[in-house]
Amino acid sequence: MNIPTKRREIGELTLSRITGGTGSAVVDSLKDIAPDLAEWVIDFSYGDVMSRPGLDLRSRQFATVAALTAMGTAVPQLRVHLHGALNVGCEPSELVEVILQMAVFSGFPSTINALNIAREVFKERGVTPAA
Amino acid sequence: MNIPTKRREIGELTLSRITGGTGSAVVDSLKDIAPDLAEWVIDFSYGDVMSRPGLDLRSRQFATVAALTAMGTAVPQLRVHLHGALNVGCEPSELVEVILQMAVFSGFPSTINALNIAREVFKERGVTPAA
Amino acid sequence: MNIPTKRREIGELTLSRITGGTGSAVVDSLKDIAPDLAEWVIDFSYGDVMSRPGLDLRSRQFATVAALTAMGTAVPQLRVHLHGALNVGCEPSELVEVILQMAVFSGFPSTINALNIAREVFKERGVTPAA
Amino acid sequence: MNIPTKRREIGELTLSRITGGTGSAVVDSLKDIAPDLAEWVIDFSYGDVMSRPGLDLRSRQFATVAALTAMGTAVPQLRVHLHGALNVGCEPSELVEVILQMAVFSGFPSTINALNIAREVFKERGVTPAA
Amino acid sequence: MNIPTKRREIGELTLSRITGGTGSAVVDSLKDIAPDLAEWVIDFSYGDVMSRPGLDLRSRQFATVAALTAMGTAVPQLRVHLHGALNVGCEPSELVEVILQMAVFSGFPSTINALNIAREVFKERGVTPAA
Amino acid sequence: MNIPTKRREIGELTLSRITGGTGSAVVDSLKDIAPDLAEWVIDFSYGDVMSRPGLDLRSRQFATVAALTAMGTAVPQLRVHLHGALNVGCEPSELVEVILQMAVFSGFPSTINALNIAREVFKERGVTPAA
Repeated sequence: MNIPTKRREIGELTLSRITGGTGSAVVDSLKDIAPDLAEWVIDFSYGDVMSRPGLDLRSRQFATVAALTAMGTAVPQLRVHLHGALNVGCEPSELVEVILQMAVFSGFPSTINALNIAREVFKERGVTPAA
Repeated sequence: MNIPTKRREIGELTLSRITGGTGSAVVDSLKDIAPDLAEWVIDFSYGDVMSRPGLDLRSRQFATVAALTAMGTAVPQLRVHLHGALNVGCEPSELVEVILQMAVFSGFPSTINALNIAREVFKERGVTPAA
Repeated sequence: MNIPTKRREIGELTLSRITGGTGSAVVDSLKDIAPDLAEWVIDFSYGDVMSRPGLDLRSRQFATVAALTAMGTAVPQLRVHLHGALNVGCEPSELVEVILQMAVFSGFPSTINALNIAREVFKERGVTPAA
Repeated sequence: MNIPTKRREIGELTLSRITGGTGSAVVDSLKDIAPDLAEWVIDFSYGDVMSRPGLDLRSRQFATVAALTAMGTAVPQLRVHLHGALNVGCEPSELVEVILQMAVFSGFPSTINALNIAREVFKERGVTPAA
Repeated sequence: MNIPTKRREIGELTLSRITGGTGSAVVDSLKDIAPDLAEWVIDFSYGDVMSRPGLDLRSRQFATVAALTAMGTAVPQLRVHLHGALNVGCEPSELVEVILQMAVFSGFPSTINALNIAREVFKERGVTPAA
Repeated sequence: MNIPTKRREIGELTLSRITGGTGSAVVDSLKDIAPDLAEWVIDFSYGDVMSRPGLDLRSRQFATVAALTAMGTAVPQLRVHLHGALNVGCEPSELVEVILQMAVFSGFPSTINALNIAREVFKERGVTPAA
């Protein structure tokens, strides 16, 4: 309704850079059940938060992958953001490092489960972590 | 007993770079209750994991701060690793960005509670996040 | 063995009102592995707790859906209690509101994952959240 | 910068109804470390989410108290929202019911720890749960 | 009201063996806010669950200490059950082993935080883990 | 590279006793994505931690099953360690007791979800919990 153009535009741009998708795809995916959530994802998550200038997108994706690995309750989102990390220039080997590091902080199960998702994502992309 | 010199030396070096502390301080802090844990912290956490060459220490600390913020169950460790992040060159404003980003992934309470710890750490260090 | 008739009867009644199922179905589903758990579910969870007079069943189901959404580790139970919420008169749109609200408290992944379950439950029931 | 007046006004109103506080107090509390978070709290959390018309504020607070009790990682926020629940008309005894119900879903420790916070909140307010 | 004597008696006995406390102390501690919770603690937690014959109390306390360490959200309960573990014959060194083992499953912060609580409990009891 | 023979040998032995598998199988399963993790699993998790003499393997597996049940985020690992528990002499009925006990500490959903995994494991093994 009264969404400021600027948040929407900035959000769409960052959404596109990270996920490779469009705002309208987000809107479509949620319009049957919670259309306003699509606006929040675009305007708030990608517009207000992920677009902030104080940290580069590579670092932001390292942070996201670390958090989702540690939480262990966000498998679909970890998949999306591993793709997103690759989209903004993170190397597969760097993402493996972030996930391995979580063994210290949230335990080996969280690391192993996240690596299994990373393996699938890398396979879909045809990339491999350098030895 | 049979700790390889190399893991210990590498671990001590990275421990020192991140926490500013020494392995012997870790050993002292745990010798009354679980002396072997001190060895694991130095040899495994700092030696095997945090010292790996594939990711820079700044990115590692972003990942750690993100994970500990999202988990919400590791206040003393979040404090240590906010100090550690500053020690390896993360800017206060960058750490605030990582913590703010967690509002999206683990919710506002996790962000607010971590910011309150960051405020204390910044105060102890006499630093402030640039506007 | 010495289960008081009253807890059992009250539990069966509330179980039936919320889940639409019978105590004997619960008993059957657990008799091969942990028959006493069936008694705890009926007598304690539904009899002692969910049947208490101080809060209406609609509010109880809002609370349950909120908690299970935020926890993110109880997918089958979230499904059961979304059905249960509809059974006791919660509107689909109200359940969407409760789930959306969790974006603030436990983050967007918890909300999105719970909405995907709600979508399936609504589809099974042939209901839709009013716009 | 480009915050739409409407979100801010709506957010301030709901913030005031729930917490009894003002947006400027939120702004003041965060201006030293993360001023934009104050805007997110007012505009997004209270403006976009908690102000939505599809669910009454009492039910919203039941949902929040349930989630924060189950999470167990948000003690300051549980305190704020227990006050908030009382502010929007939840009875102390109803809040006790919501917390007790969590024993089933997130275990007895989560219930006992939340009750200890509720006891403090009730004492500050001079209210008691009716028997 | 209709609490079967047997659950109460069995619960009181096991409560006494584990915590060293009495049911009436539990009742007193909760009578101002949630008197029925005291009954659930005695009758359900200690009567129905912890008193079951299929597992010895030492093993039960190992399981409880492991779970509470891994959860990281139940500090007061971890304290109670470390005392309880000592009361039923667990050695301080065995409890340290259980807590150390959690480093693998839930991460180093969970282990370190639990050890700090164990240190306080051991000190209160005047015991030390054998080297 | 500089892995001490002793940690590796001890780790392989305990890995074999608990999982019935070999270190080389672990190495094979991770060599495409994170070969060093295989070394950590063998040398650290099984060599340094699970092989420690201060607690018998049965008690260790009770602790692991309790923690993984309570966490609710480690389904594949819970499966592995239920098998492991049977391998080191835990009775199916004892494992059911540990899982049931978690209803008190982490809630009924955690117990029910873990029991469903235990049922599958018991079926694969052709064992049943004694009544």
